[in-house]
Amino acid sequence: MKSMQTLQKEINLVEKMIKKDVAIETTIKNLYEHIFQSNGKKIRARLNLISSSFDRNKKYRIKLAAIIELLHTATLVHDDVVDDSSIRRGNRSVNSVWSNAHGVLIGDYIYSKAFIYMVDIGDQQILQELSNATNDISQGELIQLDAINNKEITLNKLKKISYFKTGRLFEASAKTGAILAGANKNCIENISKCAKNIGVLFQIKDDLLDYSLNSKIGKPQFQDLKEGKITYPFFYAYKNANNKEKETLINSLGNKKVSTFKILKLIERLDGINKTKKLAKQFYKNAIIFANEIDNIEVQREMIELTNTAFNRKK
Amino acid sequence: MKSMQTLQKEINLVEKMIKKDVAIETTIKNLYEHIFQSNGKKIRARLNLISSSFDRNKKYRIKLAAIIELLHTATLVHDDVVDDSSIRRGNRSVNSVWSNAHGVLIGDYIYSKAFIYMVDIGDQQILQELSNATNDISQGELIQLDAINNKEITLNKLKKISYFKTGRLFEASAKTGAILAGANKNCIENISKCAKNIGVLFQIKDDLLDYSLNSKIGKPQFQDLKEGKITYPFFYAYKNANNKEKETLINSLGNKKVSTFKILKLIERLDGINKTKKLAKQFYKNAIIFANEIDNIEVQREMIELTNTAFNRKK
Repeated sequence: MKSMQTLQKEINLVEKMIKKDVAIETTIKNLYEHIFQSNGKKIRARLNLISSSFDRNKKYRIKLAAIIELLHTATLVHDDVVDDSSIRRGNRSVNSVWSNAHGVLIGDYIYSKAFIYMVDIGDQQILQELSNATNDISQGELIQLDAINNKEITLNKLKKISYFKTGRLFEASAKTGAILAGANKNCIENISKCAKNIGVLFQIKDDLLDYSLNSKIGKPQFQDLKEGKITYPFFYAYKNANNKEKETLINSLGNKKVSTFKILKLIERLDGINKTKKLAKQFYKNAIIFANEIDNIEVQREMIELTNTAFNRKK
Repeated sequence: MKSMQTLQKEINLVEKMIKKDVAIETTIKNLYEHIFQSNGKKIRARLNLISSSFDRNKKYRIKLAAIIELLHTATLVHDDVVDDSSIRRGNRSVNSVWSNAHGVLIGDYIYSKAFIYMVDIGDQQILQELSNATNDISQGELIQLDAINNKEITLNKLKKISYFKTGRLFEASAKTGAILAGANKNCIENISKCAKNIGVLFQIKDDLLDYSLNSKIGKPQFQDLKEGKITYPFFYAYKNANNKEKETLINSLGNKKVSTFKILKLIERLDGINKTKKLAKQFYKNAIIFANEIDNIEVQREMIELTNTAFNRKK
């Protein structure tokens, strides 16, 4: 467990790095502090640090993990504007305390700060991977936006959304970490593929948690349904539904006053939850397969542990 | 005039480059085409091409100018969300045709596309300058947002806003162009300072045009006043106003139903327009001073021409 303690120490350094170099303007300071007051799980930064631990003494390891968290946080701040969400990590969102305008601009500020840090590292391959990942994330979000209320959405499109909006940054976190640490080509490929599967798994679990009655997940539930977003549980249930049930499901989409308990029971009965759990299991297994291929026993162990954490998480 | 024709040809290539490599998803394509249907003045791309014309045969000249336009366009798309504007370059804004959510995300898409192109060029100094400029622009916008309805705003703060939100990208356009072309340190410095002054001049002219009765500028007028933004004409007029006039001015701020004709006449009478014109003249003169220091007669001539265009523009 020594390595877990080391990892936690490194995460603390990442938090410190994120919080320094903030513009002197009061509003920017206030916004920034508000956003980073709650630390979040930092699963992407952890993943990145594990991936760069092929060589623990490498310069810029903390900075790279900070970049990953900054990029992720920028997308969250923009997402809250996009989804009109009022809660983030248990606190009020920027758009709810300040305004949409503040959310857009401080998101841009955080994005560009991440790019400044990236340029400091000065590694062409890392720059390439992270700029491409950022572009893919915005594409994933746009595709999802376009899919709102689209009951004809295919499983492939849903998987593309999960990959682009979540799996992609997991993949980039692992890939850039391993590149920074000078890992060999095989290692980079295995850890990237493992991370990509963890990312999609993470997203599927997110979709499942949104369809649960547990209120401790730190954000309001049944949000996807209320926003008209079709995720896996709804998708699978809809496929199994008869005409009357289809109508009930469609009417619940984007309906903020729907009885979520009733819809949850219907989706459960139509096997939406179980099938989603099976899908999660598939990505879990794939992640483990690639983790087992990683040619470094300690990194392998930590990746397996991370996969288990993603699979078993309750919030 | 041969060089003007060459420049126009290059601008056409920039437009072509901007329009290629767009994601295959229909919504993204549609959004992207909508945004780039109207070509705009492309003054920043022109400035960049002039600056890189120290060496016309340099690889990546067109790509760099495309990056500048992409970055600029991303800020415009986000600005329209921030300001809730419905018109951009004579067409309806993304947020007005689609939604704020689309504006935020396609803005992110365009930003990250610019970063991908930047990484392709692979020049550390250029990456540094552009990532810093992007961060400064978002700071400028945030400071401006914070200054809404703030009648105590200082001239220095107004100048900081003009520099960060507009001058900064002009400066970066010139600087990165000259760096790409391998210009000497003195040349880089002079052309950057010239461009910075052109940028602030450009912003001051923008503020002036917003306080005019000409309806051909391609966007609705008196927007700044209606949005509660204090710009130079209002600032100078307010300083000269007696208590009753101050009250009239304050009541007009952020008031969408105000008689703009009456307010314009008041601001004119209180010398707000003339003083702003004088300020523009100062930045014009500074730009010319630095242009005259540029150690290449053709580049010098084109920078002077661009300064004149910025100073004399009617829209």
